Amino acid sequence: MMNVTIFGKGNMGQAIGKNFEDAGNTVHYVGSATPKNEVTIGEIVVLAVPYPAVSSILANFAEELKGKIIVDITNPVNFDTFDDLVVPADSSAAAEIAKQATDSKLVKGFNTTFAATLATKKVAGQHQTTVLLASDDQEAKKIVTEALAGSDLAVLDAGSLKRARELEAMGFLQISLAAAEKISWTGGFGVFH
Amino acid sequence: MMNVTIFGKGNMGQAIGKNFEDAGNTVHYVGSATPKNEVTIGEIVVLAVPYPAVSSILANFAEELKGKIIVDITNPVNFDTFDDLVVPADSSAAAEIAKQATDSKLVKGFNTTFAATLATKKVAGQHQTTVLLASDDQEAKKIVTEALAGSDLAVLDAGSLKRARELEAMGFLQISLAAAEKISWTGGFGVFH
Repeated sequence: MMNVTIFGKGNMGQAIGKNFEDAGNTVHYVGSATPKNEVTIGEIVVLAVPYPAVSSILANFAEELKGKIIVDITNPVNFDTFDDLVVPADSSAAAEIAKQATDSKLVKGFNTTFAATLATKKVAGQHQTTVLLASDDQEAKKIVTEALAGSDLAVLDAGSLKRARELEAMGFLQISLAAAEKISWTGGFGVFH
Repeated sequence: MMNVTIFGKGNMGQAIGKNFEDAGNTVHYVGSATPKNEVTIGEIVVLAVPYPAVSSILANFAEELKGKIIVDITNPVNFDTFDDLVVPADSSAAAEIAKQATDSKLVKGFNTTFAATLATKKVAGQHQTTVLLASDDQEAKKIVTEALAGSDLAVLDAGSLKRARELEAMGFLQISLAAAEKISWTGGFGVFH
């Protein structure tokens, strides 16, 4: 059982937090109005906020996040153009965050699953939702995976943190398909083993 | 009904060709040993060859391919490192091919579906296979989509040719998951609408 801290109380934060709770962990939610002295930082910290909001959280909690597992769930879509990402093409949001959070253990995940598919644990109500995790820290990936055991989500090791680039491309593609009404926000990409 | 030419007689070429045949089109297969004077170039030309083999086909059939629809199915994986792609990070195989085949209509597709899922029309034997198509030529996308009607594949418009970058990232991720035995070569990503 872990203490898990979720920054962000939106649909993604709530759905991810619920899964950690369902698996028996204690979850602490942090909203933008939560006073810093009321924030509990657990072993696993999920940044369920938009990519532009990540940097200030890392700065504000620099000391507290040392040694912790940080889970980056962002899709750094350029919402002005909706045609590219705001991170360099050969990088990823996760790689950029890793540059700032050098004393934490960074895991990319949850960015290829819409909130509804995390909340219901099924894609389109019919196929088990799979969370893809990428990290250079095998132990951190294992801890997150084990913390989700019992949540009814499937968890798959997607490789090193470098694969965050592909995960974010897939997340962007899925968002663009839903925005164009080619798929619904309860559907998207399912993983078949 | 269309005349469809498939360059490449491997698993992908055969599975794609069979789908066009199932949908009632006439399919002409071209292998590396096929003499040029025996090659029939149809309205739709699928380049079902590895990315490094595309350029010479475009050069050898430069005249014949003018005005035709070219379908690029490649995943330009760097098979030495298996850790990146051989095309520039802000580009895609499709974008590179488009630079050479300026007088053809380029469509990206079939690169996010393993050969087995095209042959059986199902991902992991249970969910209809969806082909994602990206192109700047709406008419070309429509012609390919209509030519596949009746094949039992689902076809989805994934947007402009720029989305080939994301399709290739997704294809690469899928290949890397299968190579790491996290998923099987008959499974992978299914699309839920």
